[in-house]
Amino acid sequence: MTVCRELIQRLPAERFYYLGDTARVPYGTKSSEAVCQYATEAADFLCAQGIKLLVVACNTASAVALTELRETLNIPVIGVLEPGARAAVATGARRIGVIGTEGTIGSGSYEKALDRLAPDLAVFTAACPLFVPLVEEGWREHSVARQVAAEYLAPLLAREIDALVLGCTHYPLLETAIRSIVGSEMPLVDSAASTAAEIVDLLEKEGLLTSAVCGEQRFFVTDVPVRFRRIGGDFLGTELQFVERVHIGC
Amino acid sequence: MTVCRELIQRLPAERFYYLGDTARVPYGTKSSEAVCQYATEAADFLCAQGIKLLVVACNTASAVALTELRETLNIPVIGVLEPGARAAVATGARRIGVIGTEGTIGSGSYEKALDRLAPDLAVFTAACPLFVPLVEEGWREHSVARQVAAEYLAPLLAREIDALVLGCTHYPLLETAIRSIVGSEMPLVDSAASTAAEIVDLLEKEGLLTSAVCGEQRFFVTDVPVRFRRIGGDFLGTELQFVERVHIGC
Repeated sequence: MTVCRELIQRLPAERFYYLGDTARVPYGTKSSEAVCQYATEAADFLCAQGIKLLVVACNTASAVALTELRETLNIPVIGVLEPGARAAVATGARRIGVIGTEGTIGSGSYEKALDRLAPDLAVFTAACPLFVPLVEEGWREHSVARQVAAEYLAPLLAREIDALVLGCTHYPLLETAIRSIVGSEMPLVDSAASTAAEIVDLLEKEGLLTSAVCGEQRFFVTDVPVRFRRIGGDFLGTELQFVERVHIGC
Repeated sequence: MTVCRELIQRLPAERFYYLGDTARVPYGTKSSEAVCQYATEAADFLCAQGIKLLVVACNTASAVALTELRETLNIPVIGVLEPGARAAVATGARRIGVIGTEGTIGSGSYEKALDRLAPDLAVFTAACPLFVPLVEEGWREHSVARQVAAEYLAPLLAREIDALVLGCTHYPLLETAIRSIVGSEMPLVDSAASTAAEIVDLLEKEGLLTSAVCGEQRFFVTDVPVRFRRIGGDFLGTELQFVERVHIGC
């Protein structure tokens, strides 16, 4: 939803189809095989809606499934990982810290993406499995969130990183806790903004921007939508007009 | 696995088929509809292996799916919730606290089970969504676990409970942290032992105990088994001989 919000703000005339796989999340603790299967099923559902571009708005799925999705789909597929890596390089930092789920960090995808862009950078990574549950529990500014952040970030600070990539779409919601540990000067790279910017560029370049004004959002979830309707609506600051439960992958 | 370990110790001659739905856990944050569907699919898989009794060794699934499973299956189905409630009543406590996942607590199933057994008890409940992630992260005796336990348990202690039901099969693994908050005198009810005892009784009563000595355990998981093989083996204190990935529900 952090990526979706950025996109809606930048492209208010476009029609968005959003799928949240709420019946099978979190992805960050699952194997790459499982996440790849789930991402493929989600992509198949969205492609059946007639989309012109697919955004994989999840770092874990971007880390393990992007290559396969690009090979099998005949529309542009944009992940959040490469835009995040490019934004990290753009900070000018030389020693980059990356935090993410076990799946994202275990895949080594950020190291590979940063190495392709700037092979002389030093990259240090840390998995932060409790961050997503803390956000889901609503303890974003709780002292426990600060304590957990201190523990996860200490090894990165010991390596004297000079920028930190928030390599999970949940983590920008913990910015206050993370900022309290890394200090006010550390650049925090949130891939939502850079991903949205790249998508706008691509749509312009390919002549894919809508000419009609649709401005509609359709939200699909795989579990019952009660919780999503409430939290998603709060997050976007508006009541969600269209939320529907769907079954995918079977 | 806390229930499975108890059962293997008490019934070493029996053959056990264990299914861990690792591709879709956790259940505690999912809707009752989703958990009910997953539990039915898991039961169908296990019944196809020719089992003589089904243990629903998860409080969330016991809370929301037991009635449906009992109606549709023609073998005995034992959940962990009723044995836990009976063990709580047996402590002689008058003001019982129950902690569990959002799914278990939201279902009201413990209140109902305790009310059926002893309508004059006072029951107070609290959902503890961060406990399962803390166990999965291995922070069982970390100061963060104690701080989270303090926060979740404070409202129950304020109600002057005199026994606490650990209404999730993960929670006995947090006993040190929980004990540090509730003190050394509070009875902690772990349904694993009481469930195992009831199963032994039932098998004896129904003449279902094995006459051969099989003593075999077959573990099935729905995600790749690497992590399960390691953690499950550590937990049972022996290398798991048979672990296989299976696809269910499709």
